[in-house]
Amino acid sequence: MLSSLKRFLIGRPLKSTELGEQKLIKTKALAILSSDALSSVAYGPEQILLVLITVSAAAFWYSIPIAIGVLVLLFALISSYRQIIYAYPHGGGAYVVSKENLGIYPGLIAGGSLLVDYILTVAVSVSAGTDAITSAFPSLHPYNVVIAIVFVLCITILNLRGVTESASILAYPVYLFVLALFILMGVGLYKIATGAVLPELHTPIGTSVAGISLFLLLKAFASGSSALTGVEAISNAIPNFKDPAPRNASRTLIAMGSLLAVLFSGIVYLAYYYGITPKADVTVVSQIAEHTFGRGFMYFFIQGTTALILILAANTGYSAFPLLAVNLAKDKFIPRMFTARGDRLGYSNGIIILGLLSIILIVAFEGQTEHLIPLYAVGVFIPFTLSQTGMVVKWIREKPKGWVPKLVINSIGAVISFIVSLMFFLTKFQQVWSVLVFIPAIIYLFHRIRKHYEDVGDQLRLSTCEPAIPIEGNVIILPVAGITHVVENSLNYAKSLSPHQIIAVYVPFEREDELAFEEKWRKFQPDIRLVTLHSPYRSIIQPLTKFIDTVQRKAGASNYQVTVIIPQFIPKKGWHNMLHNQSSLLILTHLLYRKNVIITTVPYHLKK
Amino acid sequence: MLSSLKRFLIGRPLKSTELGEQKLIKTKALAILSSDALSSVAYGPEQILLVLITVSAAAFWYSIPIAIGVLVLLFALISSYRQIIYAYPHGGGAYVVSKENLGIYPGLIAGGSLLVDYILTVAVSVSAGTDAITSAFPSLHPYNVVIAIVFVLCITILNLRGVTESASILAYPVYLFVLALFILMGVGLYKIATGAVLPELHTPIGTSVAGISLFLLLKAFASGSSALTGVEAISNAIPNFKDPAPRNASRTLIAMGSLLAVLFSGIVYLAYYYGITPKADVTVVSQIAEHTFGRGFMYFFIQGTTALILILAANTGYSAFPLLAVNLAKDKFIPRMFTARGDRLGYSNGIIILGLLSIILIVAFEGQTEHLIPLYAVGVFIPFTLSQTGMVVKWIREKPKGWVPKLVINSIGAVISFIVSLMFFLTKFQQVWSVLVFIPAIIYLFHRIRKHYEDVGDQLRLSTCEPAIPIEGNVIILPVAGITHVVENSLNYAKSLSPHQIIAVYVPFEREDELAFEEKWRKFQPDIRLVTLHSPYRSIIQPLTKFIDTVQRKAGASNYQVTVIIPQFIPKKGWHNMLHNQSSLLILTHLLYRKNVIITTVPYHLKK
Repeated sequence: MLSSLKRFLIGRPLKSTELGEQKLIKTKALAILSSDALSSVAYGPEQILLVLITVSAAAFWYSIPIAIGVLVLLFALISSYRQIIYAYPHGGGAYVVSKENLGIYPGLIAGGSLLVDYILTVAVSVSAGTDAITSAFPSLHPYNVVIAIVFVLCITILNLRGVTESASILAYPVYLFVLALFILMGVGLYKIATGAVLPELHTPIGTSVAGISLFLLLKAFASGSSALTGVEAISNAIPNFKDPAPRNASRTLIAMGSLLAVLFSGIVYLAYYYGITPKADVTVVSQIAEHTFGRGFMYFFIQGTTALILILAANTGYSAFPLLAVNLAKDKFIPRMFTARGDRLGYSNGIIILGLLSIILIVAFEGQTEHLIPLYAVGVFIPFTLSQTGMVVKWIREKPKGWVPKLVINSIGAVISFIVSLMFFLTKFQQVWSVLVFIPAIIYLFHRIRKHYEDVGDQLRLSTCEPAIPIEGNVIILPVAGITHVVENSLNYAKSLSPHQIIAVYVPFEREDELAFEEKWRKFQPDIRLVTLHSPYRSIIQPLTKFIDTVQRKAGASNYQVTVIIPQFIPKKGWHNMLHNQSSLLILTHLLYRKNVIITTVPYHLKK
Repeated sequence: MLSSLKRFLIGRPLKSTELGEQKLIKTKALAILSSDALSSVAYGPEQILLVLITVSAAAFWYSIPIAIGVLVLLFALISSYRQIIYAYPHGGGAYVVSKENLGIYPGLIAGGSLLVDYILTVAVSVSAGTDAITSAFPSLHPYNVVIAIVFVLCITILNLRGVTESASILAYPVYLFVLALFILMGVGLYKIATGAVLPELHTPIGTSVAGISLFLLLKAFASGSSALTGVEAISNAIPNFKDPAPRNASRTLIAMGSLLAVLFSGIVYLAYYYGITPKADVTVVSQIAEHTFGRGFMYFFIQGTTALILILAANTGYSAFPLLAVNLAKDKFIPRMFTARGDRLGYSNGIIILGLLSIILIVAFEGQTEHLIPLYAVGVFIPFTLSQTGMVVKWIREKPKGWVPKLVINSIGAVISFIVSLMFFLTKFQQVWSVLVFIPAIIYLFHRIRKHYEDVGDQLRLSTCEPAIPIEGNVIILPVAGITHVVENSLNYAKSLSPHQIIAVYVPFEREDELAFEEKWRKFQPDIRLVTLHSPYRSIIQPLTKFIDTVQRKAGASNYQVTVIIPQFIPKKGWHNMLHNQSSLLILTHLLYRKNVIITTVPYHLKK
């Protein structure tokens, strides 16, 4: 039943050799890997205006130079990540780059931030998209959290089905969103050009504004830079591309950067020219759309595709998180299970964990994840800074042909990213301070995990271990609960292994019971030694383990191995298990984890 | 850690021989077994008035004859249960009496209703008590459910500590409540006698009232009878009494009956004389107290002890449920685990299950359990009717000395109880219909459980089974995941059991891996046969079980037994388990439940 449900949801299992068919072509890759970055256009320009409005509406013209700054940063980031893709064609992005060039700690800081960041991406973007939907249908508002969870589950299942299948489905909304914004910008610019929009709506560029400061401008710049989150996703996901993977990834990255640049500048310019002021309950994009089209079909088309792309931005997390996790797991910093491919050849453990953790975040914040946005942005700019600094170090160290312009690009990127990160700490400290707690915590955890794997490796390696002590013979302990067919069965097996060293053990709770059982046993198996252990506190495990200890001490002296045979009867139907005391299972787990004793389970399958 | 928390909460374990010290003296038994019955005085009289008010306030005088009817029923029930106690000194009450005299189905109907009823007792009385408290402190109102759950947990823990300890703590509030009501009645009657209360407040007895009908009077009578729920508890709990248990139980029962009769008649009479009309937000007892004392200390004392006893009424369920469960479990109708005594010699599984189920009820009904009261009353009167009919049958069948008066008493009890049950169905059908669903469902479940236990017994009994086939030799299958110390260890053990019949099995996911491993194995253990099972779908269990099937078929032909040895390494710390894929455990459970194969677990304890 369960397995057919699984088949229905995620499809038939794929052979390992079918991996090639699960690779992405450029247009699909662009759709699923850039949804996060492109969706930021829906809120990035607004963030700039929200800072400027604290001075006055006259300051809005500053959004133009700030946007140019963001575009410079975007250009630096795209160029830098293009270089990273070619330099590290197996993916891993910021983590691998920082680790190789700056050392293990910067690598872990980058990897840890990104790991947390992808969880935030999923939670924040699904919550934002759900908000957009429930604002349109207010009767759904009380079910915000449930709706968000359903979306996360759907995206998780889509990703478990495999990356190509999710790409096929998710590509439409992404391209529709891009199309919608292009139409908006085209019509808007046409109206401006034909003079249909009054130029009095905005203050001219260069107007002097009282109260403006460099600090404020930097703050506005940092806020606007949140539109650039998600540009690193492609460099993490190179292994998902069709061959030649690095070239395809690099072209996709450039396509994404160009789209992002055009959309971002278009929205900023229209907002400036229309003189739009951010409002609490209507987004800037929505205001532009209303100015341009009125509340007609195009307005709702733009609103609808915006809500969709906000939700789908989550998918970028699903593409990048499992691959980053594979890289960390290969280096033994997180559990090995993240490297296992699931039935559909995706790294299903990473996908499932990502879904689970983001659902936990959504539930914990009751769907109100807006105040996680600064945290999320800082979690992106720290790895940006580290990876580009890493590239700077690489160029200086290796000095390949034509390294100077590359160095310049990466240096500019590193400096700007660093300034942005710093601005987040300076201006939004009470929202981002937790980064200073959880990054060290994650790194400590990474190290503990790595240490454990290394310890295990040391202990298992044959060369470093003392040779095993040869086993001279076996002593078998057989706990019995009565004289039944189950016991007879187990006893037969014990005799086949070691006929002369069998001890049956019975644990009576009452004295009378003890004698009666000894009597019965003498008739049943006179040749097998029976030990009874009276248990006044009605515990079976305690006297039994004490007895095993004694036997083990004696047996150990002559290199005999002690085996405990546990008869276990298996009922025909699952619910029958509730009707039995499961003492066998309790004894099994207790002995296995506490004692160094071999345990043999002899099943007795009930037939009815 | 967990076990020291357990020690702290419930105390040190007790030896089986200390059972005698856990028995109850009469005064303590009265306190914990009659809290349910006595607490009903707080709402029983009100139930009568609530029915009469539907005609007019003039009809209130009918409460006096109705109360006399309730007293007759009480007398019949007490006399009858007294006879049951002597006839069935091992407890079990309605279940045992009905089963022995009327047959298995009436017994199960009685037992099933009571089992459900005790869960309802706990949920309803704790919710009612919590309501009384939060009415006094309205700021606590939003936490109703949480407070109720905390109370259930406290009572559960008290009962797990043992019946004498809970009796010592719970006796005070019960006796304080009785004292409070006696003072109330004394002062009230004194005021009436001295003429301080005007006699015009009530209509005289015998006034003719328009619209009164026999049906209405019977309905009022049935509602008033809900004050008698809980009188059967003592007959269930005889084994908890100090010796001579039946005599002590019988005296306690009579004491309880007398107290109940006095308190019930007193409250009904005062309510009638004061002319009290039931109100939505002030209880009848509270109105009487206010009339008598004003809102002074005594008023709040009465309110406080009432709230307490409502909560403690739950304890009656805790005393009776586990003992009823033991009786049902001994007859194999419910899981055997209910017969096991816990560390403190109480039937702890019954106590825990009762606590859990009532918490589930409280949560499901969000603490609004009032509409469960009729269900709860009908669940008591069905067993009342059955047990007394059972006694009637017994007297007719056995005809002991002086059986005629006994027969009369039980017959009256049976008829009145039957009428009350019927009235519940006729007048409150939409609240009690579910009894008609869940009683058959429970009986069906009882039978399925019994059938399973009987099937198991048949299969395990030696005489009825075919003799076990002798084992000629052993074939050992050893799944290996690499060449490590763990594998070497398991291999040594396998060699000590059956040096010539060992097959190592390796499941590679990739073809290259297969050849490389075979190569390495030839160097490591050239004498041990290695089988590699390439698994294109990356499943270990599937190819392994298929292989085991093949081996088993061949081995079975020559009476060889197949044993699978599973190397399991045990990390030093619990959390380390998360870092390993637990394939061993997965294979173990899968093989154990699906295949008839013997499984030996060779632990390898990591040292760091």
